[in-house]
Amino acid sequence: MAQKTHFADRLIAAIQKKGTPICVGLDPRLENIPAHITAKAMKEKGKTFEAAAQAILEFNKGIIDAVHDVVPAVKPQFAFYAPYGFAGVWAFEETCKYAHEQGLVVIADAKVNDIGSTAEAYANAFLGKVGLFGAETDAPFVCDALTVNPYLGTDGVKPFIDVCKKQGSGIFILVKTSNPSSGDLQDQIVCEQKLPAYELMGHFVDSWGADEIGKSGYSSIGAVVGATYPSQAAALRKLMPQTVFLVPGYGAQGGGAEDVKPCFNSDGLGAIVNSSRGIIFAWEKEGDEKKFAEAARNAVEDMKQDLYAI
Amino acid sequence: MAQKTHFADRLIAAIQKKGTPICVGLDPRLENIPAHITAKAMKEKGKTFEAAAQAILEFNKGIIDAVHDVVPAVKPQFAFYAPYGFAGVWAFEETCKYAHEQGLVVIADAKVNDIGSTAEAYANAFLGKVGLFGAETDAPFVCDALTVNPYLGTDGVKPFIDVCKKQGSGIFILVKTSNPSSGDLQDQIVCEQKLPAYELMGHFVDSWGADEIGKSGYSSIGAVVGATYPSQAAALRKLMPQTVFLVPGYGAQGGGAEDVKPCFNSDGLGAIVNSSRGIIFAWEKEGDEKKFAEAARNAVEDMKQDLYAI
Repeated sequence: MAQKTHFADRLIAAIQKKGTPICVGLDPRLENIPAHITAKAMKEKGKTFEAAAQAILEFNKGIIDAVHDVVPAVKPQFAFYAPYGFAGVWAFEETCKYAHEQGLVVIADAKVNDIGSTAEAYANAFLGKVGLFGAETDAPFVCDALTVNPYLGTDGVKPFIDVCKKQGSGIFILVKTSNPSSGDLQDQIVCEQKLPAYELMGHFVDSWGADEIGKSGYSSIGAVVGATYPSQAAALRKLMPQTVFLVPGYGAQGGGAEDVKPCFNSDGLGAIVNSSRGIIFAWEKEGDEKKFAEAARNAVEDMKQDLYAI
Repeated sequence: MAQKTHFADRLIAAIQKKGTPICVGLDPRLENIPAHITAKAMKEKGKTFEAAAQAILEFNKGIIDAVHDVVPAVKPQFAFYAPYGFAGVWAFEETCKYAHEQGLVVIADAKVNDIGSTAEAYANAFLGKVGLFGAETDAPFVCDALTVNPYLGTDGVKPFIDVCKKQGSGIFILVKTSNPSSGDLQDQIVCEQKLPAYELMGHFVDSWGADEIGKSGYSSIGAVVGATYPSQAAALRKLMPQTVFLVPGYGAQGGGAEDVKPCFNSDGLGAIVNSSRGIIFAWEKEGDEKKFAEAARNAVEDMKQDLYAI
C-alpha cells in the first residue's frame, strides 16, 4: 500500500495521539499461544503448517483488537512466521494487513540485508511496489517500516532509502543490538575514527537519513538501539538527535524504564519502545488463557505507567 | 529433512563428484524469465502473485533439470521470492525441494540474523526441525545450508551452529561481501587486534567452526567471501584454512577466474563459486528464449573451463 506521507511524521503523530511510545512485538511463538486457539486450528486443519498459521493469525488479531486503540505500533517478527513455510508467511502478510486496517503503524522485523540489486528486491517486497508482468502492484507485506542490517555498507542500504523516499516508508538500521554478544563486533573500537563500531554506524545512519527529515524534525531512516545498553544509547542519542530509535530489550530481555530513558530526546520523543513476550504472553502470568487479550491490554497499561515515570 | 551426515563432507564430495566447484544462483528476476513461461502462467492465473510464483518455479525447474548433473550446488536467493508474498515463498519452498530431489546441495541465501531465541526460530525454519503442536516435523525449507549475517555477534550465530551440529547442516557467515561498499564497515581496522573487521570476523568464524570439522578436513561453518576482493580473500584463506568459502561476485558482478583463485586452498578445494545471472539468464545473450535451459548448461560449461584454467 502506497504511503504518501512521511514515515517519521506518521510515527511521531501516532505516538502523540496514543500518548505512549509503545510498540507491541508480534512474536507468536506457537507453544505460547492459548490452547483454545491452537486446539481449534488443529481440529480444523490437523497438525499442519496451515493450522499453525491459522492459530497465529487468530491470536494476533485478538492481540491487535485489544491494543490497537492504546499503542501506536506493532512489530511482527518474521522469524516466528518462517518456521511454517509459505503458510506462516501468509499469516505474516495477513497480520500486517489487519494491523494496518486497525490504524497501527506496522514495523516488519526481518533484519534484511543484501547487495544493491538484491536489496532492492527486499525493499520492494516490504515497503514499495512490486513489478508484475510489466505492471506494478502493491507489495505483499503492508508495512510502514522495516528493520535492516548494515553489515554490507552504504550500497546495501541505499535501495531501502530510495524506496522510503518514494513511498513515504521508513527503515530502522541495526546500530547497537540488545543481545549479550552484540559487542563482539559492534563494540570494537575502529582505529581511524577512534569510535566503537556502533557509533561509526550511528554516524552512517545519521548521514543516510539527513535528507529524509520530516516536519516532526525526525528522519524516516531510524536506528535499532537496545534497551539493555543505556550508556551506549545515551552516546548515540547525542550523536544522532534526529533519528528515531526502535528500542528492543524492554521487559523479558531485562531492560526497564530507566534503561530506555537515554533513548529519548528532551522533547520526550525520538524513541519507540518494543515489548513482545511481556505483552502478548502476559496471560501466562495471570493464568487465564481465555483472557489473553485482556492480559495483553493490562500489560500495555502497566508498561505505559512504567514509561510515564521516566 | 534431517541430514545425518556432515555438511562440509557432503559438499566437498559433491564438488569432487561433479568435478567443479560451481554453485548456480537461483535469482529468478521475473522480468528476465522467458516470455513463453510468463505468458503461460499469466494465461492460467492472471497478473497475480500466484502466476509469478508458477513462472518462477517452472523456470527454476528448467534450470535445475539442465544443470543438476554438472554442478554440485544451487543457491536460491530469498529476496527474489519475497516480492510475491506467500506465493513467492511457496515457489522458494518447492524450488529447494526439487533441487534436493535432483541430488543438489541447496544453499538458502537469506542472510538471516537476530538475537539468540529468535535466531533459533530461523535456524529451525531453514535447517532444522520445527515444533508443531507438541510434535516435531521437518522444516519447510529443504536446505543443506543457509547464509547468516554476523553483525549481532556470537549469541546470534550460536543457535545456527547448534542446529548444524544436530542436523548435519551448514551455514555460511558473511565475512567480506562482494559489493562495492562492503568496506564501509568490513574494512575498518579494529584497534585492539589491529585487523580489518572482516579478518576479525574471519577469526570468529574460524573459532565458531573449529568443532564442526569433518573427515574432509573442512568445517560446516563456512564464510561468504566475495570474488571481487581477491587480496582480502587471500588473507582470509590463510587465516581460516579449514573454512569453506562461498564465493559470490563471479561473472555479472565482475569477478573472474583469477579473482576467485585465492579463495581455494592448495588442495584445489575449500571454495564454492556462485554465479547467478551469468548462468540462469545466459539465454538473453544467445537470444533464443526457448533454449534458456540449454544456454544455462552451456554457461556452466564455459564457467567450468574458465575455472579449470586457474
